[in-house]
Amino acid sequence: MRNIKLTIEYDGTSYAGWQQQKDETTVQGTLKAAIEMVVGERIILYGAGRTDAGVHAQCQVANFKTASQISSLQLPFAINSHLPKDIVVNTAQDADDKFHARFSAKWKIYQYLVYNSHIRPALNRNFCCFYNFPLNHRIMKKGAKLLRGTHDFSAFKTGTLPNDNNVRELKRLEIKRKGEYIFFILEANGFLRHMARRIVGTLLELGRGKILIKDFDSILESKDPQLGGPTAPAKGLCLLEVKY
Amino acid sequence: MRNIKLTIEYDGTSYAGWQQQKDETTVQGTLKAAIEMVVGERIILYGAGRTDAGVHAQCQVANFKTASQISSLQLPFAINSHLPKDIVVNTAQDADDKFHARFSAKWKIYQYLVYNSHIRPALNRNFCCFYNFPLNHRIMKKGAKLLRGTHDFSAFKTGTLPNDNNVRELKRLEIKRKGEYIFFILEANGFLRHMARRIVGTLLELGRGKILIKDFDSILESKDPQLGGPTAPAKGLCLLEVKY
Repeated sequence: MRNIKLTIEYDGTSYAGWQQQKDETTVQGTLKAAIEMVVGERIILYGAGRTDAGVHAQCQVANFKTASQISSLQLPFAINSHLPKDIVVNTAQDADDKFHARFSAKWKIYQYLVYNSHIRPALNRNFCCFYNFPLNHRIMKKGAKLLRGTHDFSAFKTGTLPNDNNVRELKRLEIKRKGEYIFFILEANGFLRHMARRIVGTLLELGRGKILIKDFDSILESKDPQLGGPTAPAKGLCLLEVKY
Repeated sequence: MRNIKLTIEYDGTSYAGWQQQKDETTVQGTLKAAIEMVVGERIILYGAGRTDAGVHAQCQVANFKTASQISSLQLPFAINSHLPKDIVVNTAQDADDKFHARFSAKWKIYQYLVYNSHIRPALNRNFCCFYNFPLNHRIMKKGAKLLRGTHDFSAFKTGTLPNDNNVRELKRLEIKRKGEYIFFILEANGFLRHMARRIVGTLLELGRGKILIKDFDSILESKDPQLGGPTAPAKGLCLLEVKY
């Protein structure tokens, strides 16, 4: 059996997230059906990141095993001919038999885009979060510095399972402003459920003055999901890259 | 009567262009209805550029006269509350009585965005034109140089009226590549119908080798709309700025 690695771009606006669900249109379900049309057999499709409903991807990674002999150069074109306009396979390659899109992933990079203005955006409205409060960038950068590194990120997750390991290494958390846009770049060896969006939601509350920097450390240390800030809207989030 | 100048951003995907038409949803018609809800009287709305169906605007300019005393600071918020998500008024200001969005305009700047790859885009699909032929940028830049300046642009327009003045000054025509994207920036004292899109369509044929640079001058000199290249798709075009 061949093990095929795909890179996939999608606009998540119309999907109930990546992961296949009964009675919901998902990216995984749509892509799996398109691949099965091409390879002529049932497959199991593994994705690197289970993006939520409304979250986008510039470069999601997935893999599947197949007996099909269609060349990896032809595969993207063949699959794309069965995909809707908001999903596209950019590359396909034969991977090592042990490669697993999710378990082999070392680092994931997400971008969160905020439109910080007193007036909502029209052109880019599906790809950013509109935030109309003035923001103190110096304070947000201080907060970001406290979050970088290896921590138990329980305070920034959603849902609790008692024996979960909630320690992750957040090796990069950058905040850059360009006009009305604020780009948050987050790179970690893994993200807990809603972690990227709750980190951004909490940093925005900090920048706005609703949370004080003196309390910021204790939020992280509390490991209490009740204490972290709100989950920023899905549409601002985009999976940029997965490193192996 | 006050004369109000507005700057407007819109995603033209769902509209039959700027200009009001019977039985069609247009940006001008939608915006006019929203303004009339706010000022409580019928208005005449003048736009700087009559963008075609599917063309976008980052900064369209329009003006209207009104007896309403609502402050120009409050106007955008009041109008936006009556607008759909894909149109937004960014600013309003009291202008000189003689100001006319279209006739006072000195320069208009358009951007045309091409996605040049062998695979179609998913994320940005409504805001660029997918072009999958390899392009010679050096040759396109040579063509752009021939077009810059004051010329009769009849070969690059659509529709003919015998006594039209088709001379325009194209003061800027830049081509920049960034990854898969090619940005065409066009600045002129006026654009004939489809002129921006036909210039881009012709430059793409030149870059692809379907038109030769030695024939390029004669296309312009012919003043024959039959000889210019194809009209590039509307969705790649965006009105960036109007200068007064």
